[in-house]
Amino acid sequence: MRRTPKTGIEATLIRRILHALGASGKLRDIEVGPGDDSAVISPRPDAQWVVTCDSFFEQTHFLPRFHPPDVVGFKALARAVSDLAAMGATPRFFLVALALPPSRTGKWLDEMLAGMARAARRLGIQLVGGDTSAQPSASLCLTVIGEVWRGMAVARSGARPGDHLFVSGMLGEARLGLELVQRGMARRPSLRSFLRRHYYPQPRIELGRWLARHRLVTAMIDLSDGLSTDLHNLCRASGVGALIRSEQVPRANLPVVRGIEMNALQLALHGGDDYELLFAVPARHVPRIPARFEAIRLTDIGEVTRDRAILQQDARGRRKILHAQGWDPFRSK
Amino acid sequence: MRRTPKTGIEATLIRRILHALGASGKLRDIEVGPGDDSAVISPRPDAQWVVTCDSFFEQTHFLPRFHPPDVVGFKALARAVSDLAAMGATPRFFLVALALPPSRTGKWLDEMLAGMARAARRLGIQLVGGDTSAQPSASLCLTVIGEVWRGMAVARSGARPGDHLFVSGMLGEARLGLELVQRGMARRPSLRSFLRRHYYPQPRIELGRWLARHRLVTAMIDLSDGLSTDLHNLCRASGVGALIRSEQVPRANLPVVRGIEMNALQLALHGGDDYELLFAVPARHVPRIPARFEAIRLTDIGEVTRDRAILQQDARGRRKILHAQGWDPFRSK
Repeated sequence: MRRTPKTGIEATLIRRILHALGASGKLRDIEVGPGDDSAVISPRPDAQWVVTCDSFFEQTHFLPRFHPPDVVGFKALARAVSDLAAMGATPRFFLVALALPPSRTGKWLDEMLAGMARAARRLGIQLVGGDTSAQPSASLCLTVIGEVWRGMAVARSGARPGDHLFVSGMLGEARLGLELVQRGMARRPSLRSFLRRHYYPQPRIELGRWLARHRLVTAMIDLSDGLSTDLHNLCRASGVGALIRSEQVPRANLPVVRGIEMNALQLALHGGDDYELLFAVPARHVPRIPARFEAIRLTDIGEVTRDRAILQQDARGRRKILHAQGWDPFRSK
Repeated sequence: MRRTPKTGIEATLIRRILHALGASGKLRDIEVGPGDDSAVISPRPDAQWVVTCDSFFEQTHFLPRFHPPDVVGFKALARAVSDLAAMGATPRFFLVALALPPSRTGKWLDEMLAGMARAARRLGIQLVGGDTSAQPSASLCLTVIGEVWRGMAVARSGARPGDHLFVSGMLGEARLGLELVQRGMARRPSLRSFLRRHYYPQPRIELGRWLARHRLVTAMIDLSDGLSTDLHNLCRASGVGALIRSEQVPRANLPVVRGIEMNALQLALHGGDDYELLFAVPARHVPRIPARFEAIRLTDIGEVTRDRAILQQDARGRRKILHAQGWDPFRSK
């Protein structure tokens, strides 16, 4: 039972985290901030809270050989916030449970926190709490809290037959970035622009909020596991099927890279990590969906069907089943 | 880029989790439940939200050789909820991010979830969301959300010189339980009662709420890392010191176990995992603190001092520094 006097390493670490993430400064709507047993936050009148959590593990979600620490911090927070965007919510607060090997408590941690702080500023979200643990391998568990006007949140489950299916942005670029990174091509200047989407995803908060506030959508989901898998998730929750016109799916202009054969449509359908939005729009509201929202392209890619099959149709009208071939953490590779 | 068709292992796992934790039934104040991108929950008017998160890792926080899976599930949730009790909050909602090796997705998972469901029922808290990940080693990250009447939350930071320091319950029993478990004595019938506190901690929700509602306390913290460490945390947050009368510290009646020498006071001061409450009471309110709250003993163990030193005084009046010798995850053992 004898122990050496406590050096307070954890306490020092927590102070560094609070400082890096700006939680030692002025806080909005936070009565008790991070560092206490719990945080106390004040809801706005007439708001509902929207909460979700997302884990980010070394080797599974990031590869220390390939992903700089600031990418780890930025991306871990951004992908959690994307789940708020998919509800039409405004991000407000987050908690981070950090597990770190002792070797990652120095420069790596500082850079990771700098990336997370940059994401937090851009996403307008404030740290309210967290937890630290020494572990052999690094991981982050992010809990994010947003708010939405009462009754305005958009679930996955409201899509109805006849609704049009839209996606935002270009699909497949993030997955292309991962392929380039894994092949050691991250530093080639001509390819660098393809990495941005993989490194620093931009959750579609403004778009999600706009769609929810104007009640233009019946169901919405963010594309984290890949269009095919997330479309299956939306359809299952809504009890419907879908017909996707594959030639309409907005896809990356692939760079020509010697020795790599890639199919832009396959990347767009199954690639994952896009953090774009997939949403269902009743036919009467389709004219109100602009071709672009700010700079983000919005594309009508198909429709919701009564029949529960999920089909893709090519330019010649041939149909086949669109299998969910995106990311499943429990499927053996 | 070719992949095998998705088998939906994750989807099946999520359905099992929702079913086991009762989240497929009737939900209170939850507009969109777990299984969507995020949950949507409704705050009560005039309430503030209290949020915290807590990780629970294999090898660090539980030992699969010694801790049955239902203990893992019960304890992971109970210890997170203890941080709400320490604010005087009422637990409402929780999220669980689960990382599991494939070998733990069968019976182990079912038993773990049964333990967690039992804790959830006892603590009156409902599942609203989560995340699953396949990892080589099991871990759980629990985020818990509670509520408190506006302005009633008790932080660590309000203790003032002259306040009396109280603790609830008996300290050191949980640590004693761990010592017995690690020595393979968990199955001895005569020792089993000592394991209960280690296996199934009981966060002091009712007590915390009662103290907060009657504004009897200036600062409060739950004893998770051990009295010495948590007292340091409370004093640092409040900018004060403390004098503890060590003969007053309520401690376990140790069993006589051949070959094990234990010191009840050391267990009580530094043991950790008690999940009792340490709270500061202004002198004028001390008469209002009962000797017992329900069946839980409340003991005056010392006082808050202006001088920032943290001292212990023995029965003969001799004083020495009380070092923080409880749990620090980043200290090498």
